[in-house]
Amino acid sequence: MTKPHAAARAEAIEPFRVMAILARARALEAEGRDIIHMEVGEPDFATPAPVVEAGIAALRAGRTHYTPALGLPALRAGIAAWYGERHGVDVDAARVAVTPGASGALLLALAALFDAGDEVLLADPGYPCNRHFARLLDARAVAVPVGPESGYQLSAALVERHWGPRTRGVLVANPGNPTGTLLDDAELAAIHAVVRARGGWLLVDEIYHSLVYDRVPQSAAALGDDVLVINSFSKYFLMTGWRLGWLLAPPALLPVIDRLAQNVYLAAPTVAQHAALVALAPDTRPLLEACKAELRARRDWLLPALEALGFRIDARPAGAFYCYADVSRFGGDGESLAEKLLLEAGVAITPGSDFGVHGAGRHVRFAYTTALPRIREAVARLARVLD
Amino acid sequence: MTKPHAAARAEAIEPFRVMAILARARALEAEGRDIIHMEVGEPDFATPAPVVEAGIAALRAGRTHYTPALGLPALRAGIAAWYGERHGVDVDAARVAVTPGASGALLLALAALFDAGDEVLLADPGYPCNRHFARLLDARAVAVPVGPESGYQLSAALVERHWGPRTRGVLVANPGNPTGTLLDDAELAAIHAVVRARGGWLLVDEIYHSLVYDRVPQSAAALGDDVLVINSFSKYFLMTGWRLGWLLAPPALLPVIDRLAQNVYLAAPTVAQHAALVALAPDTRPLLEACKAELRARRDWLLPALEALGFRIDARPAGAFYCYADVSRFGGDGESLAEKLLLEAGVAITPGSDFGVHGAGRHVRFAYTTALPRIREAVARLARVLD
Repeated sequence: MTKPHAAARAEAIEPFRVMAILARARALEAEGRDIIHMEVGEPDFATPAPVVEAGIAALRAGRTHYTPALGLPALRAGIAAWYGERHGVDVDAARVAVTPGASGALLLALAALFDAGDEVLLADPGYPCNRHFARLLDARAVAVPVGPESGYQLSAALVERHWGPRTRGVLVANPGNPTGTLLDDAELAAIHAVVRARGGWLLVDEIYHSLVYDRVPQSAAALGDDVLVINSFSKYFLMTGWRLGWLLAPPALLPVIDRLAQNVYLAAPTVAQHAALVALAPDTRPLLEACKAELRARRDWLLPALEALGFRIDARPAGAFYCYADVSRFGGDGESLAEKLLLEAGVAITPGSDFGVHGAGRHVRFAYTTALPRIREAVARLARVLD
Repeated sequence: MTKPHAAARAEAIEPFRVMAILARARALEAEGRDIIHMEVGEPDFATPAPVVEAGIAALRAGRTHYTPALGLPALRAGIAAWYGERHGVDVDAARVAVTPGASGALLLALAALFDAGDEVLLADPGYPCNRHFARLLDARAVAVPVGPESGYQLSAALVERHWGPRTRGVLVANPGNPTGTLLDDAELAAIHAVVRARGGWLLVDEIYHSLVYDRVPQSAAALGDDVLVINSFSKYFLMTGWRLGWLLAPPALLPVIDRLAQNVYLAAPTVAQHAALVALAPDTRPLLEACKAELRARRDWLLPALEALGFRIDARPAGAFYCYADVSRFGGDGESLAEKLLLEAGVAITPGSDFGVHGAGRHVRFAYTTALPRIREAVARLARVLD
């Protein structure tokens, strides 16, 4: 009798190191320690009241059945209109697939485009789930080393250099996680041109795109309807637990995307879709912008404070709520520093090694997803421990 | 310049024929025709009021953030306890993964167990998403022809006969879709023994298991903690649009399942998880059982009525809300009959060909997910058209 075993693909997906930090943080809290959480990639703000009320109204109205696989027509239209209002880009609602989180969008997009053995280029460091998704589908995530010289982003030159015979596409996160850095519009267009010339696909993850502080960057949707754009109601719209995102796909792919959605998840949560209609409404915008301003204030305070402590921040984050910091000054081992800061300062952060192999071990990620007084307290504690 | 194309895996996923029926039904409705929908695999009942109220209370309480990837601890415990109450089976809450729908559970289970090229045995006819999920992961769904002689279910003998060198497991739906037929407890145990002796995995989809009318069948959870059991809040608990299901997994797989969940969907929808706590509560049970009794009354009326019209029902459905009918008497082509019945009688049903290739084209599926007066009206219309 053979012993049953798990799939090699599943075993190959590494655990997040931050989960060990989180488990230890919870254990310390259970002992009565006060832990400041700067490891969590989730805004601390609640969903705005009008959005919550819209969810409640949908439940009261009995909206508890499935929606069409691609989402409520009104929500697809609302998302399309949002590109017009915010970015001046004309998007056909028929190109919008409403998905269960950006995770659902990423799964659809990768499943629609990449067969086993096909390669997708992505930045290292980068959001680990992206390469794990590729692994799930037995596609190959080719990690392209990036650093401060390109703002921790891919460039047209890097894409050209790493394009191989099995490469079928490029996945860019703009801004990126863990760095919060943004591609400039011209470089993104240049990447698009390189990908298009090779008959490949460009996928752009814009889940933090509305959380860019100093300007409204161009959406990749402006580059043409051949680009796949992934977005989410989780971050800017503060709807993490509702599990709702979307995908803009090229028109020719929509029938494939629709079939995949019908098979893979049937439909995104109905109550979330009704609530999202109000999340997009103009009246909700000031509430979202106020939270964004608060995030910006945190960044503006935290960055120089970390630098003053001796962390090196090679690329200023333009958005998201992360700060990727080099810890060479403190021995250069992000994992052991994260452990030390948890135990000695009661501050939980994420080791850089969760985000890749290219210099990632020498970094940590701070998430400013906690209130400014707590961030100040965290920095004061770090100052004592790192002195 | 090469033209970009979709992945072969995605192109290989066939569209559901019922979607064409549905699109035509909607077009007819737009013209003012009255269409009776017996194609939809979703109960017509709304979510029970106490469950909806629990969702509303969760939203009011600001439960809009992520839960842990495996779900709220209280819900995992509640699901485990439910096996004790309903089936007398002791299940450790640590074995429960709360998932976004049974779809999420199926994706986790297949991804955790089957590498590219690995084979999973399943019944033909059967729920088409199951083989499509396998295709998504480049695993091979081996369709085992089943018919009335085994109640349209796999048997230990069939599993033995079809087990090959690349077979790593068996997926059983109990009761099945489109037939609503149930394996008897001894046969399921025999299948388990065959699978175990070969070092494979047994996966049992029990999403319709609580909608078995004449008895409470044994859950596959009783066979041992090496069996993977997939279930859902959609059908018996009437929570389709909430997108919530669960997976019972063997203890050794939980770390893998947890990592996959963290990467693939982060967490199931939070509001649904809070509402589901009340769906499991004893006070809600009578509401659910009343809906189940109504479904049973529909089955008891519909079956003989269809037989009187000349449909042949080879295996009496024990549960779910489907009736799989042979249409030999009407020419034997399920697709053209479904089209004819839509156009001439205004009754939408699903062609059997959506469910496989083994005799499936000679069948149609009736879903009794509409009220009894409408079902009676549908049968009267069919009588006129088929006379």
